[in-house]
Amino acid sequence: MSSLTLGVDVGGTKVLGIVLRDGVVVDSHRVATPHDDQRPAGDATTEAVYAVINELRARHDHDDLVVGVGLPGMMSREGVLAFAPNLPTASGADVATALAAYDPQLRVLCENDADCAAVAEHRLGAGRGYDDMIMITLGTGIGGGIISQGELLRGRSGFAGEVGHMVVDAAGPRCPCGSRGCWERFASGGGVGRLAREAASAGRLPLLVAQCGDAESVRGEDVTRAAAAGVEEAIAVMDEVGWWLALGLANLTAILDTGHFVIGGGLSEASQLLLPSAQRHLESLVEGSSARPPITVVKSQFGEISGAIGAALLARERLG
Amino acid sequence: MSSLTLGVDVGGTKVLGIVLRDGVVVDSHRVATPHDDQRPAGDATTEAVYAVINELRARHDHDDLVVGVGLPGMMSREGVLAFAPNLPTASGADVATALAAYDPQLRVLCENDADCAAVAEHRLGAGRGYDDMIMITLGTGIGGGIISQGELLRGRSGFAGEVGHMVVDAAGPRCPCGSRGCWERFASGGGVGRLAREAASAGRLPLLVAQCGDAESVRGEDVTRAAAAGVEEAIAVMDEVGWWLALGLANLTAILDTGHFVIGGGLSEASQLLLPSAQRHLESLVEGSSARPPITVVKSQFGEISGAIGAALLARERLG
Repeated sequence: MSSLTLGVDVGGTKVLGIVLRDGVVVDSHRVATPHDDQRPAGDATTEAVYAVINELRARHDHDDLVVGVGLPGMMSREGVLAFAPNLPTASGADVATALAAYDPQLRVLCENDADCAAVAEHRLGAGRGYDDMIMITLGTGIGGGIISQGELLRGRSGFAGEVGHMVVDAAGPRCPCGSRGCWERFASGGGVGRLAREAASAGRLPLLVAQCGDAESVRGEDVTRAAAAGVEEAIAVMDEVGWWLALGLANLTAILDTGHFVIGGGLSEASQLLLPSAQRHLESLVEGSSARPPITVVKSQFGEISGAIGAALLARERLG
Repeated sequence: MSSLTLGVDVGGTKVLGIVLRDGVVVDSHRVATPHDDQRPAGDATTEAVYAVINELRARHDHDDLVVGVGLPGMMSREGVLAFAPNLPTASGADVATALAAYDPQLRVLCENDADCAAVAEHRLGAGRGYDDMIMITLGTGIGGGIISQGELLRGRSGFAGEVGHMVVDAAGPRCPCGSRGCWERFASGGGVGRLAREAASAGRLPLLVAQCGDAESVRGEDVTRAAAAGVEEAIAVMDEVGWWLALGLANLTAILDTGHFVIGGGLSEASQLLLPSAQRHLESLVEGSSARPPITVVKSQFGEISGAIGAALLARERLG
């Protein structure tokens, strides 16, 4: 018998659970994220999380269990998902308390998903050895987790790290959060789609438009795939995304003077194109660049699984 | 006989020194800031700082002296003013080392001016009682000092808090730092001047244009003065400035989840108009506003003297 540590990451499309043993992922299970807006906030989400937990704990003998859950949006220090523009059906949910209704014995810790990813990369991955680093997850939106002097920077209510909603273009496109021109309208997976349609409409993607039928049909994935295959017009759009990524990193550098960025999330799959582009633009965008030591921008080690790993690590760290 | 603590703040127009005793300013002296670009970086600045120190220490009997110096720009942890877009003649200067050439006995600590102001307000002023707060100084540019868990957040090289160079309008006006659309192009004293000329040219300041002769002659001071006197067209421009101020505060809130902002610097003299406007706009600009506890935006207690006070406090804290 032994102790069991689970990490569950709730994303826009899937709920992914992992078993972490001695810093190694030894098992995993996933289900589709429910988007049920007929029930109270987070009920469907909690059900899915509980299903994943049950599946994994049944597979592994244990006499002690802790579960960490990563959720997308503003997580309060009390564990409430206070605002979730990219998962509105879970906005307002208190998943840990809701899980206790299923099983009062369950020890659960909830934290923002990108904060979890930051902890995973800092403790075990691409941020090891850095006292200060920022994790950036490029998915539907942009998540952020700030490690300052070795610890997660949480802020007054626990909401720190919502970097995707930093406005970088005051008159820019509307964001589900209510503002205009948020960083995540440009440098996320969703941003690639938007910039791709813009480029297609402006006649800058003739090959892709011919292939997809019309400008409206060009999706972000078409651009990342074509860019990876070396199609010049698609590479140009990815470089534009890289520029916007660098702009946000430059802002974070001005504010926090962090020298190390770890980039994860779905879009980081395109990192071979994106990261060198961002690194190059960063040099010209950051204030007093020549007076600073080099800034490193690296791909996350754990990719899409980093949130779940970090949730597991945080649960062990905080719940013992 | 006793110990003497001096704080010196180097601004764009004046070098201000104060004597701090038991948290109270008991004396001060100021000289004009020299802008001599014929000599090596910072030589003229150092000379002026030394003149202020000499004047003040001659006035007060003491057997122990520490001096804190606040400088505008990117201050390294080693005390070098690595980059100073708003005081180019001092860019690259190591003022503490240069002062040692005048007097090897002198114990000097140099820090960024807004960082100093943050410490002053946090320890003794409008930020007392807050573990986390951000000081914003609205002068020629925008300076920032971040207090996190009671301590100054310095970052890797000591450059943290350069919030004025956060880009908020990617296609916006050029900044001396090299970028476009930095926050300080909009919400600083310089920003008021720029927005005033823009409004005048667009026909939104007919009374002021008539008074000043032409649109080009309308300065920021004209707008702040007219707004204070209740002139509607000027109040509208100040409200625009307040909107931009709020935008930057909203970005900082998203990133750091700080709930308390202290606003200082020359432009804060217009705070009776500016702060209520910023506070009102902040509510609609900050992500998940309704899920957050109220955010407070208050005027600095020490005004233009806060940098000098904080420099003195930091010198005592760090040099003993």
